[in-house]
Amino acid sequence: MTTVGILGGGQLARMMALAGAPLGLRFLVMDTVADACAGQFAPLIVGDWRDERALSEFASRVDVATFDFENVPAESAQWLAQRIPVFPSPRALAVAQDRLAEKTLFRELDIPVPEFADITSRADLDAAIARLGTPCILKTRRLGYDGKGQFRIRSAADTDAAWAALGAQAGTVGLILEGFVSFDRELSVVAVRGRDGEFRIWPLTENWHVDGVLSASLAPATVDAATAATAFEYARRLAESLDYVGVFALELFACGDVLLANELAPRVHNSGHWTIEGSETSQFQNHLRAVLGLPLGDTRMVGLACMLNWIGQMPDSAAVLREPGGHWHDYGKEPRAGRKVGHATLRADSRGALAEVLERVGQALQRPAQVAPVVAKLR
Amino acid sequence: MTTVGILGGGQLARMMALAGAPLGLRFLVMDTVADACAGQFAPLIVGDWRDERALSEFASRVDVATFDFENVPAESAQWLAQRIPVFPSPRALAVAQDRLAEKTLFRELDIPVPEFADITSRADLDAAIARLGTPCILKTRRLGYDGKGQFRIRSAADTDAAWAALGAQAGTVGLILEGFVSFDRELSVVAVRGRDGEFRIWPLTENWHVDGVLSASLAPATVDAATAATAFEYARRLAESLDYVGVFALELFACGDVLLANELAPRVHNSGHWTIEGSETSQFQNHLRAVLGLPLGDTRMVGLACMLNWIGQMPDSAAVLREPGGHWHDYGKEPRAGRKVGHATLRADSRGALAEVLERVGQALQRPAQVAPVVAKLR
Repeated sequence: MTTVGILGGGQLARMMALAGAPLGLRFLVMDTVADACAGQFAPLIVGDWRDERALSEFASRVDVATFDFENVPAESAQWLAQRIPVFPSPRALAVAQDRLAEKTLFRELDIPVPEFADITSRADLDAAIARLGTPCILKTRRLGYDGKGQFRIRSAADTDAAWAALGAQAGTVGLILEGFVSFDRELSVVAVRGRDGEFRIWPLTENWHVDGVLSASLAPATVDAATAATAFEYARRLAESLDYVGVFALELFACGDVLLANELAPRVHNSGHWTIEGSETSQFQNHLRAVLGLPLGDTRMVGLACMLNWIGQMPDSAAVLREPGGHWHDYGKEPRAGRKVGHATLRADSRGALAEVLERVGQALQRPAQVAPVVAKLR
Repeated sequence: MTTVGILGGGQLARMMALAGAPLGLRFLVMDTVADACAGQFAPLIVGDWRDERALSEFASRVDVATFDFENVPAESAQWLAQRIPVFPSPRALAVAQDRLAEKTLFRELDIPVPEFADITSRADLDAAIARLGTPCILKTRRLGYDGKGQFRIRSAADTDAAWAALGAQAGTVGLILEGFVSFDRELSVVAVRGRDGEFRIWPLTENWHVDGVLSASLAPATVDAATAATAFEYARRLAESLDYVGVFALELFACGDVLLANELAPRVHNSGHWTIEGSETSQFQNHLRAVLGLPLGDTRMVGLACMLNWIGQMPDSAAVLREPGGHWHDYGKEPRAGRKVGHATLRADSRGALAEVLERVGQALQRPAQVAPVVAKLR
């Protein structure tokens, strides 16, 4: 009997445990908080990521470890990797944790990226703004996610405010300035690579964010064959260069025919949640298959799927459950402003049918704005 | 937050908990043994079904109760139903627990059944054998399943042996003699009825048993529209007469165009396991939706699915996992002769493709006999 340890006990760990149960796996989750929602379906160790006693107990009770949370300190991941197999590797994690290392790697691999600059001082910032132009965006190199740790600079006049907001972090987590990209749409590649190097991707997904947080995803994204092949190639190149094992997401900006890499998420990803019902094998099960060295599952999908994120609190489920292709995911979390508490996936056989379902759901839940961009894309 | 209590903690409870997690549900399982496999993913109370203290604790911790095991004593179910909502109702459970009551109900509802006779004495048995003819089969009225508590009478000369084997139970669980049916095939209807009376069935399933235990299921069974309509009608009639809430299976013998009712299983059913990957909504999630009064999910399927049961011990998973439509279900149980320890579901888009997959899997796992009847049916 194999026990998989998961660092981080949020909804990703929870959905991983649910997807792994049929493989006969047991799970042990470690999180910093006692009410981590994966703890409802798997035993939970509560401890700080740097707490060696907790890590030691965790390591002694699992056969292999993986992550639901990419910001586990790289040293903790390394400490574990000296004791048990850890996938993805601490190196892959370290690269993905650092926007500067990540974008540098993209560039090395000939994967186009928006302009960027390392910012270690106010003088760096001034020079970089002059070089990249405005608008641009100042971000922490590490630990930012879902729009946190970011400051948008509309013109050079915003420099003082940006530095006041984030400058203190130049010497701690580090800062990076990123050029603004006027993209047409946001796409993501959700991909999986096995221990034997086998590599697969799910159909590309188009994403819509609100206030920096994913609001809706549509799969498959409508792309021509060349764009799909390019996205596949970028993801494969990244995975191979990192000897990556498991699922990851590569977020892309599409500007006309050009794809720019935005971010690598070294884990199962919110934009792949639709794979639970929308594809033959979910990202959660394929991540576990990869981590355990099992054959990877088929990533094909039938029809179309749209995922809607529920932020802050769960709406009423009935509007979704009464739709023939409606599936509900309540993460069992306490409501809290800005928190991802669940999602719905709507499946349909045609674009028109999916648009109709989304309009009904958007109206019933009084969330027309959330479904509108997806409906517009489908029509 | 709703907690669903499940009486019985086997693989059905386990798969129910996994299917119910996305609905935001929590579970509490009660079983007589501490290593019940659902306990790996839900809290478990260990206690005898008649242990009022255990039942009382169970009742105090759940909002609604249901079953993974139909042989919970009817009195225990009634005791619970006086305290919390219990679905299906103790009455439905009581009918399904008793082959005589069940067959009597079938007959009352104009659902054809094989000949049967209540056996309370050796004299009854002799008279019934004379009336029904041989071969026939002596069964306990209660508590038999998977071929246990049954004695096949090939000729009147077997009467002594049959009575020696089961006669002592005439005064306890009761006995019934059933006429032998020379059927062409075994079908099952897996159906669900909501608290509001909404009724749905999944496509009919054809089943193959070995030594009285389900070995393989194929869906959809090839049936003409009239047969499908008849099966639907029998299941609907049964559900309405029992005011049934939840999923149940009606096992049928097909003799040419005639369908004979064999057994009602008042719970999710082994012949519906393929619905997890093979239909839009699994039997497990629809059972919970019904029990909780939520809208029922779509029961349509795409393509075909074959379920293979693993009895005794799990084979190697790779042969199944490497098939594009291959899905694995390990129940996390210790191996034991005759025990259902897991299953696989193979999905494909055409009969020919499914036959090929089954042949490959049967060969790789050295189980050609298990797949052969399904392959023959598909070709």
